[in-house]
Amino acid sequence: MKKLTYGMVGGGPGSFIGEAHRRSISIDSQAQLVAGCFSRSIDKCRITGAELGIDEDRCYASYEEMAKAEAARPDGIDFAVIVVPNVSHYPACKAFLEAGINVSCDKPLCFTSEQGEELVRLAKEKNLLFMVTYTYTGHVTAKHIRQYIADGKLGKIRNVMAEYPQGWLAYEGEWGGKQGEWRCDPKQSGGVNCLGDLGTHVENAVAMMTGLKIKRVLAKMDVVVPGRVLDDNDLVMVEYEGGAIGTYWTSQFAIGADNDLAVRIYGDNGSILWKQTESEKVTIITRDGTTIERHRGNGGIEASAAKYGRLPSGHNEGWLESMGNLYRSLIECIRAKKDGTFTPDMIDFPTVEDGLEGVRFVEACVKSNNNGNVWVDM
Amino acid sequence: MKKLTYGMVGGGPGSFIGEAHRRSISIDSQAQLVAGCFSRSIDKCRITGAELGIDEDRCYASYEEMAKAEAARPDGIDFAVIVVPNVSHYPACKAFLEAGINVSCDKPLCFTSEQGEELVRLAKEKNLLFMVTYTYTGHVTAKHIRQYIADGKLGKIRNVMAEYPQGWLAYEGEWGGKQGEWRCDPKQSGGVNCLGDLGTHVENAVAMMTGLKIKRVLAKMDVVVPGRVLDDNDLVMVEYEGGAIGTYWTSQFAIGADNDLAVRIYGDNGSILWKQTESEKVTIITRDGTTIERHRGNGGIEASAAKYGRLPSGHNEGWLESMGNLYRSLIECIRAKKDGTFTPDMIDFPTVEDGLEGVRFVEACVKSNNNGNVWVDM
Amino acid sequence: MKKLTYGMVGGGPGSFIGEAHRRSISIDSQAQLVAGCFSRSIDKCRITGAELGIDEDRCYASYEEMAKAEAARPDGIDFAVIVVPNVSHYPACKAFLEAGINVSCDKPLCFTSEQGEELVRLAKEKNLLFMVTYTYTGHVTAKHIRQYIADGKLGKIRNVMAEYPQGWLAYEGEWGGKQGEWRCDPKQSGGVNCLGDLGTHVENAVAMMTGLKIKRVLAKMDVVVPGRVLDDNDLVMVEYEGGAIGTYWTSQFAIGADNDLAVRIYGDNGSILWKQTESEKVTIITRDGTTIERHRGNGGIEASAAKYGRLPSGHNEGWLESMGNLYRSLIECIRAKKDGTFTPDMIDFPTVEDGLEGVRFVEACVKSNNNGNVWVDM
Amino acid sequence: MKKLTYGMVGGGPGSFIGEAHRRSISIDSQAQLVAGCFSRSIDKCRITGAELGIDEDRCYASYEEMAKAEAARPDGIDFAVIVVPNVSHYPACKAFLEAGINVSCDKPLCFTSEQGEELVRLAKEKNLLFMVTYTYTGHVTAKHIRQYIADGKLGKIRNVMAEYPQGWLAYEGEWGGKQGEWRCDPKQSGGVNCLGDLGTHVENAVAMMTGLKIKRVLAKMDVVVPGRVLDDNDLVMVEYEGGAIGTYWTSQFAIGADNDLAVRIYGDNGSILWKQTESEKVTIITRDGTTIERHRGNGGIEASAAKYGRLPSGHNEGWLESMGNLYRSLIECIRAKKDGTFTPDMIDFPTVEDGLEGVRFVEACVKSNNNGNVWVDM
Repeated sequence: MKKLTYGMVGGGPGSFIGEAHRRSISIDSQAQLVAGCFSRSIDKCRITGAELGIDEDRCYASYEEMAKAEAARPDGIDFAVIVVPNVSHYPACKAFLEAGINVSCDKPLCFTSEQGEELVRLAKEKNLLFMVTYTYTGHVTAKHIRQYIADGKLGKIRNVMAEYPQGWLAYEGEWGGKQGEWRCDPKQSGGVNCLGDLGTHVENAVAMMTGLKIKRVLAKMDVVVPGRVLDDNDLVMVEYEGGAIGTYWTSQFAIGADNDLAVRIYGDNGSILWKQTESEKVTIITRDGTTIERHRGNGGIEASAAKYGRLPSGHNEGWLESMGNLYRSLIECIRAKKDGTFTPDMIDFPTVEDGLEGVRFVEACVKSNNNGNVWVDM
Repeated sequence: MKKLTYGMVGGGPGSFIGEAHRRSISIDSQAQLVAGCFSRSIDKCRITGAELGIDEDRCYASYEEMAKAEAARPDGIDFAVIVVPNVSHYPACKAFLEAGINVSCDKPLCFTSEQGEELVRLAKEKNLLFMVTYTYTGHVTAKHIRQYIADGKLGKIRNVMAEYPQGWLAYEGEWGGKQGEWRCDPKQSGGVNCLGDLGTHVENAVAMMTGLKIKRVLAKMDVVVPGRVLDDNDLVMVEYEGGAIGTYWTSQFAIGADNDLAVRIYGDNGSILWKQTESEKVTIITRDGTTIERHRGNGGIEASAAKYGRLPSGHNEGWLESMGNLYRSLIECIRAKKDGTFTPDMIDFPTVEDGLEGVRFVEACVKSNNNGNVWVDM
Repeated sequence: MKKLTYGMVGGGPGSFIGEAHRRSISIDSQAQLVAGCFSRSIDKCRITGAELGIDEDRCYASYEEMAKAEAARPDGIDFAVIVVPNVSHYPACKAFLEAGINVSCDKPLCFTSEQGEELVRLAKEKNLLFMVTYTYTGHVTAKHIRQYIADGKLGKIRNVMAEYPQGWLAYEGEWGGKQGEWRCDPKQSGGVNCLGDLGTHVENAVAMMTGLKIKRVLAKMDVVVPGRVLDDNDLVMVEYEGGAIGTYWTSQFAIGADNDLAVRIYGDNGSILWKQTESEKVTIITRDGTTIERHRGNGGIEASAAKYGRLPSGHNEGWLESMGNLYRSLIECIRAKKDGTFTPDMIDFPTVEDGLEGVRFVEACVKSNNNGNVWVDM
Repeated sequence: MKKLTYGMVGGGPGSFIGEAHRRSISIDSQAQLVAGCFSRSIDKCRITGAELGIDEDRCYASYEEMAKAEAARPDGIDFAVIVVPNVSHYPACKAFLEAGINVSCDKPLCFTSEQGEELVRLAKEKNLLFMVTYTYTGHVTAKHIRQYIADGKLGKIRNVMAEYPQGWLAYEGEWGGKQGEWRCDPKQSGGVNCLGDLGTHVENAVAMMTGLKIKRVLAKMDVVVPGRVLDDNDLVMVEYEGGAIGTYWTSQFAIGADNDLAVRIYGDNGSILWKQTESEKVTIITRDGTTIERHRGNGGIEASAAKYGRLPSGHNEGWLESMGNLYRSLIECIRAKKDGTFTPDMIDFPTVEDGLEGVRFVEACVKSNNNGNVWVDM
């Protein structure tokens, strides 16, 4: 089958996330990088392009130029991957949508719900696919949980305890390198740091697994490490439509925590425990208290999730595979669009609508915090 | 060394907690049960007394009678153990204090801070020892954490995440037996269920380990399982004096959770993770992210904690030993009082003042919840 | 119910195991220590006796004297607890059996199978109860495994992997204190160190759980830490009657290992994993690969095992409770003998026959090792 | 940098291992598949080739043809990847070596040490690079252990306990699909099943981590599941040069085990515990018993290992990345050979000599087992 082609905005030298996207896409060899605007400087962009084997004429000085030029080519890219700092997500996504090119954008989608709504509208209007790369929802075990709950096996959900602590920004006077610097800078990160980076992952993971819609939030956003100006620890009380409750915690100074996203879901028919750092397994407790550990790749994993596995159980799949699963679905959908076989239920990745939910969640939390930790409707 | 003597109020047939106290005290063979008011019926009381080898004339129809009679005997009990439902804690404790007898009372201490303050006052006035049996603080590893933090090894504490989920009351239409019934009954439990039972354990464990004082709380107390009238899931945001923050979660419908008290403490010099279900170990992460697991009984455990160990490392000590450690200190203190060698720094158990803190914590949470989840000063 | 009475041989100052037995018996308050020969010196014996509240006339200079004197008293002890170094197990047990007194002896039972056979014969002849305190088989979860397998749920057993590593004797020039000294001394330990101390635990734990009989062994007993003269690391290949195979590993220089007895049993219908350091749980994998974790105290634990629990699940029981479970059964049997209601199927503790099996196992291993690691029939 | 090119022998439809190699190589985008003999049928080969984007004229009917043709091309492949059943490893490798093409071959290298020695000789004579893909040694944590031990931090190694149980062939009458069928077939697998497949992984992992050389072995190779004719459970006692001892266990009927390769190494200065199913961490116990858990990506990982990490700690890397690390080094070495900058110390992958050691290990074990479980020198 012919490979699709894609272009990247961002992902120049020293970029963790750009390289990670490229590696994830490579695993399945279904799409090839052919264009890019890797840096703001055209010279740097061309150096990266050369390293990646990109033709010089498809190395662009700006994403606007790239969007227009690729749209004009008969062999233009099938999708654009946006992996720049948060501040540029919105204009970059907009440029590609307007040019009629499918988009994959890193999370969080953008800064304001107005921006997000416009992107939702544009994608719909142009009939384009738009993925927001909430990586963790790509895990086979996360998909298993979604199916298990959708099938009613957990019963009515009562409470969700979810968290994402990290420790890399725990040190006074240290800024966590280039990435930490822009995250802690109000101008580049949109006035929200920890909640935007980690809280949106929590929000999305819970939404994806449970299908619950948030009704209102009460948030406490703390600035703890001396010298910081943006939140580095957040606690959000959540009430969902239908009566369930939840709590989301994120932190950047939890020394010893790596990327410890964890979700615990309590239903009236049992419980589910999941940690992304041990994403090869999921713990399910049935109504009678029996604790069952399911491994990715073993029987017992729901078919809609198991189909994403690439290796036998016990041969760990990790972050790259999880991200790769998102791209697998995006690429299948793009192919289907080309073939005329696409139907919306084929989408098995976080969409622009999911991205907008994340932005709305952050906005509501900020409002709650600014008003003294009061309840704010979504 | 001559054994001390004690009497028990409560602990009749079917009582889990009374028997557990007796077993815990037995481990060290330093005190002997010689009197009791085990049931409200004198006949039942005498049956239990006979089974436990208590002389019939020291089986009492009421705690008031018991307190007076034992105080009058030349060989009266050295201390009274109060293990009745919460509603009777206050009057029973008061009776023994007024009679001049040392008291060990199960937690929570009582219903109102007025009651608690009176018990504090009485204990001081009568110069008596008063232990509140927050069992989990007796663990060697809990004591290790306290010393580690007191010595400044964790640096300044920034955040505390603590929780105590259980699953035994998850089932609609089921009441968890006799014990669940009185806990879910406003009259017997003081109008608070989960937070009084489990939240006070969390509050005490954190206070004991960290030494932090709560400044204010914002609490959400939910009644979730259909048919309940009292809280069965509680989430409390905490601010401590000095600027640290915390979150306490308790639940009774977390299917699969047994007695999963867990405390995570994040300082600017490292982190501590502790679970009472794995109380033989404590995880300490140092500033540079090195994760160290310490086992009770290995070198590296602080001397003030290690001295409570009874068995080599790897030969697990459990709940009974933890409770036994509280009684070990109480008994040492009573002996020292008799010898005239007592000094207050010998006390290594939760006191009536600690019990009062628990009552105040519950009161502040209830007020916060009743007023719509607002901040309430302690 | 009237308490039984017991006497102790050994358990003087600094004895870990004597005190541990006393604590374990205390938990249930069903038997009282009333006599003892705690040390070889009558003066030291009396000092310990006084501390333990034993009448001076029941503090004895030798176990022979004690056995005779107690047998002659109308209120003589119901059972004797033998907790001396291995070399004295045989003569001490013999003395009490000959005096008509029930015996509880620490493991290993004795040095030679001839001695063991004599003790078996004597116990039978005198119609006495004889317990050998393989502590770990007292755990509720160990009893659960036994029942699960006996009921055929694991299918036909194919392979057993069992081990007991420790680390306390890892250090050249250090001897692990008084206890290590006698264990490493051929005269006091019977010419076998690690295999006698730990290998017998492994042998007994597997035999108890699986019911398998060893047909033959091939053993490699190594002396590794410089300066040692007895084995400190042992590897035994095992073949059982009926075709199953097994491997037992023990070591005393596995730094970081506490008392890490672990048993893994593989049947044709599933697997069982058990660690005594996490004895509150047992992992059962069913035929289809589903991994189930059972907690002591939860439903799903076999009734014949669950009845030994003293605390709700999640309130850990440990080593003392496990040992206490052995004594619970011994005491029930002695009471039943007194009542005339005893039947052999009431015995739920390791017997003198089990102890003899351990001695035979050690003898076969030594023979195998001495002959160059060859197969030796049991 | 220009991509290298490679060809593949094997890896047709339904091949797990061929696709896994391709994915692993893709992650770093440093080499491109351009030729192949994917199946024995040229038609099937071309179908796979087309799917993978290979030119039809580089789809070959046999590996002999492929070796010759590629050697003759000016743009011939830089290396060949051999992923056929074991029986064809030797002739296929030989063909490419003779044609002057670098080789990457799946393990075990071949059936006899004579074959292995010839491959070693050929590689040397032709001055070619030859990698044997023992995947697990590619893990960052495995490399960390190697450096830690090489630097003397563990002291003198005393004992190694290593194992690799699986459960997929536990079922009587079931053969584990196509892969299980050839493994259980003496003709295709070389007369050894479990030990050849899993035992060689254990042997290599221990050799790589510790640097120890095996002096002699005593092996017990059992055929357990009814209907099997080759070993499905193996226990090997090992003695190393220099005095250390070890035990290797492998099994294919350990229900619940996925790919549970685990290595425990005991030195006189501490211990190391490692599991490939939790390969993101390694547990190190220092001489004083302190248990330290190191995470890939955290500080504290040796630089020679850490450099292979692609993602921040907590974003799991798995099997593909581990295999990818082997290829990363192979590709660097090939590039250096082309540049004339190659030195042998650049090799950081298992070599043909390591593969030969595996074959010798299997031969010695088979001899030991055939002669009644006796010691056999390597």
